[in-house]
Amino acid sequence: MPDGQSLPSWNDSAAKSAILDFVARVTKQGGTEFVPPAGRIATFDNDGTLWCEQPLQIQFFFAFDRVRQLSGKDPTMSERQPFKAVLEHDYNTLFGLGKQALLELAFATHAGITDEDFEQAASGWLATARHPKFDRLFKECTYRPQLELLAYLRENGFKTYIVSGGGVDFMRTFAEEAYGIPREQVIGSSVKLRFDLTDNRVSLVKLPELNSFDDREVKALNIGLHIGRRPLFAFGNSDGDLAMMRYTKSGSGPRLALLLHHDDAAREVAYDREFRLSPLSEALDKAQDYGITVVSMKRDWNVVF
Amino acid sequence: MPDGQSLPSWNDSAAKSAILDFVARVTKQGGTEFVPPAGRIATFDNDGTLWCEQPLQIQFFFAFDRVRQLSGKDPTMSERQPFKAVLEHDYNTLFGLGKQALLELAFATHAGITDEDFEQAASGWLATARHPKFDRLFKECTYRPQLELLAYLRENGFKTYIVSGGGVDFMRTFAEEAYGIPREQVIGSSVKLRFDLTDNRVSLVKLPELNSFDDREVKALNIGLHIGRRPLFAFGNSDGDLAMMRYTKSGSGPRLALLLHHDDAAREVAYDREFRLSPLSEALDKAQDYGITVVSMKRDWNVVF
Repeated sequence: MPDGQSLPSWNDSAAKSAILDFVARVTKQGGTEFVPPAGRIATFDNDGTLWCEQPLQIQFFFAFDRVRQLSGKDPTMSERQPFKAVLEHDYNTLFGLGKQALLELAFATHAGITDEDFEQAASGWLATARHPKFDRLFKECTYRPQLELLAYLRENGFKTYIVSGGGVDFMRTFAEEAYGIPREQVIGSSVKLRFDLTDNRVSLVKLPELNSFDDREVKALNIGLHIGRRPLFAFGNSDGDLAMMRYTKSGSGPRLALLLHHDDAAREVAYDREFRLSPLSEALDKAQDYGITVVSMKRDWNVVF
Repeated sequence: MPDGQSLPSWNDSAAKSAILDFVARVTKQGGTEFVPPAGRIATFDNDGTLWCEQPLQIQFFFAFDRVRQLSGKDPTMSERQPFKAVLEHDYNTLFGLGKQALLELAFATHAGITDEDFEQAASGWLATARHPKFDRLFKECTYRPQLELLAYLRENGFKTYIVSGGGVDFMRTFAEEAYGIPREQVIGSSVKLRFDLTDNRVSLVKLPELNSFDDREVKALNIGLHIGRRPLFAFGNSDGDLAMMRYTKSGSGPRLALLLHHDDAAREVAYDREFRLSPLSEALDKAQDYGITVVSMKRDWNVVF
């Protein structure tokens, strides 16, 4: 039920009202818009929606540190792209190398080991790695209003999911602690796995081969595969989330899709169309046509981190 | 906590004790083998483990009826294999046609429509279709001891999953009602999906192209992809479940893997090695070596359906 206590980090503006009203309608027993708990699926993008993605998605910093670590064991890495650019902090060159180079970076830093060993590497890194600008651990670069929203949805019977272009195993490392989202409710980009049976022990080895790049239309397809149910609620922040939001809004009955606009240079970073790694353009231009509610970080949040 | 009330359809034999003891150990607060609820993942095969799979997996009956229905609109189907064999009830020919023919049967009956339209077709069929031998609806061919076990595990903080070679969308149609397992906790074989945007409405279309055949090693790989955590508990009934059971047993700490042996010709069907669609052979021969507990339907269950 909407009340003055919910979502304290959200200002009393139209965005907050839209959320509170929507949740009240779908949870009202006997109401015409009531949705049983089983249907209360909420999907959130991660980078830029639940935690910051500037100056780069945090997973890139992990990949860069891992290149530095791996290059200690394999000095030839420093002579090969895309690793040379990483080691020289030459990010313009790196992101100009194209998609295949970024995949090679991802595979070199995320594959060739078991999922359980990767988990150790990623959680060890997250325990101490700090954001270059915000003077805090990366894992503390989560948005407080969103943590409140996730908890509020769960209190109202929603099952909260991450559906992100980020690597699924990387996100699973911190999703429970950071967001209260269990590993199995994280959907992300993934590599193929190999069943390894050595000394009578089975493990899963991450292969240098893309299984799914969980962005744009693929987000909707992966929701179909993993959840098998159209979301009732979706939250994103870029054109990469538009397909998920439109899939959500195309369902019958009440649906809510929200788009976070990073317009707060003072407290975070103001950006949209020009962010080449994950631009926000069509989703912003067409939000009204598509029935998407735009959330302004500056206007709608009274605190960011 | 183990008590005289749990699992009433299970006889007081070694199998039941193994289950009760295992659950008591992993749920004992402060015990050396305690596992937090987040780690209590239980995975069950479906066909032959949760419901009967004789004389054929139930999904074949759905596919056959759907061929009969579709052939009314497309008379040329009766001239083409594998549909000709289906329409002539010539199952020896059908299963001799090979894997590609069975895939074509699956695609013709499970693809070319949206996941939501397929849901309607499957649930409509399940509402009335009856098992040819057991004088009951197919959806009532579930095993009562297993329904008790699923509920018992959930009462003890386990999250119960289906991990089956059956089609994921078919199983999602009845898993909640039959087993209390929500759609998103069903992992199965799947076709690829296509993002369809028509008249401003998004839907997901099932394509005649295999995404994943969820059997044998692939079961473990799909657990890695969908759940991202090694199960604590696994239950199967054929060699197709062996990889999942060994993956489960390879984890650290206590793990339980169970294998249902259909040895009860009086109450169900006695079969193992000779069932060509899903044989039980290696898993039975090696159960002791692999630490797998064999459950005898005849000895360990006092009721079947």
